[in-house]
Amino acid sequence: MLLCDIGNTSYHFLDENHSFKESVQTFNPKEFPQNVFYICVNIEVAKLLEPLENWIDIGSFLQKDIYYETMGIDRKFACEAVDDGVIVDAGSAITVDVVNNAQFQGGFIFPGFDAMQQAFSTISSALEVKINFDIDLNNLPKNTPDAITYGVLKPLITQVESFKKQVYLTGGNAKRFAPFFENSIVNEHLIFDGMKKVLKNRSQK
Amino acid sequence: MLLCDIGNTSYHFLDENHSFKESVQTFNPKEFPQNVFYICVNIEVAKLLEPLENWIDIGSFLQKDIYYETMGIDRKFACEAVDDGVIVDAGSAITVDVVNNAQFQGGFIFPGFDAMQQAFSTISSALEVKINFDIDLNNLPKNTPDAITYGVLKPLITQVESFKKQVYLTGGNAKRFAPFFENSIVNEHLIFDGMKKVLKNRSQK
Repeated sequence: MLLCDIGNTSYHFLDENHSFKESVQTFNPKEFPQNVFYICVNIEVAKLLEPLENWIDIGSFLQKDIYYETMGIDRKFACEAVDDGVIVDAGSAITVDVVNNAQFQGGFIFPGFDAMQQAFSTISSALEVKINFDIDLNNLPKNTPDAITYGVLKPLITQVESFKKQVYLTGGNAKRFAPFFENSIVNEHLIFDGMKKVLKNRSQK
Repeated sequence: MLLCDIGNTSYHFLDENHSFKESVQTFNPKEFPQNVFYICVNIEVAKLLEPLENWIDIGSFLQKDIYYETMGIDRKFACEAVDDGVIVDAGSAITVDVVNNAQFQGGFIFPGFDAMQQAFSTISSALEVKINFDIDLNNLPKNTPDAITYGVLKPLITQVESFKKQVYLTGGNAKRFAPFFENSIVNEHLIFDGMKKVLKNRSQK
């Protein structure tokens, strides 16, 4: 079974053995012969795939009333993978979603690390600083670069940990963010896990 | 005694009775006859004031080793006003400083509300949302506008309250931020209070 999570820049595939990416710019889904179970946040690609019979959109396999309409389909499927926990998807935006007894409780959005860095640089050139992922967040900063890194990381971490649940990290920045949590699970295939679970549940009905 | 806190856009004066602002663009300090005790973060204005005898820079009246060099002089003087607490100065950037037994413990910087809004809009037009200061932060959001407002406000509030100290709010957004804290004091003259305290201590030596 071939799964695909389609974002704004790439098709992210997973088959039984390995995952691979294809660029939205160059990959032609019409020439792809296999059956693919996919979710897609890219409006252009969605139009392209709709008439293709071997591309099966599983977005509609979810119960409609659990999540909210404008919530990204990738966020919804990451939530499906977890019965109890906080899911942090750290990409260009950082989404934080809470699941309690397999029920979505709600979630929030924080700018991604690049967007935060840029936000500081628009305020003043004195605040133009690269985030230091080696910082020790146990001490309150006494210099400008650390004061900015702390501002980007610590409030978000404190908020995520305030839910007192297992933290699941996914997305491009999951690995560099993980060391700051007391007890987190990095799972770059969390969305695929959610897709598998939804497909399995459906096949058992 | 006339005090003045000079920022990037204005001279903020306080005499015994009232406070008033003059624009950096139009105000001419050379034609101002009174003695003024000032602090200044504006490099251009600082050059202008240096040769004027009736303008007395009190930035150097602070003990040098308490704070760090690149810390804004306005932040330092706000800290001087408080013996024990967390000082949140919510302006174009939001600075958070912790003072314990009249000792500065350190602090961090967060983008101001406008910069945060802009950061979201650079990620995706779907995230272009105005912060809703009427939100109830006790519930996890289930729609995009609330998910963004929650992301801007709640992690910062949770972090500030994690220090378990009296919260002092100052800066242009102090009043709209205050209702979200369990127990906060809004003091738009906190920097002036720090200036007065430093001048009083110096006169008693």
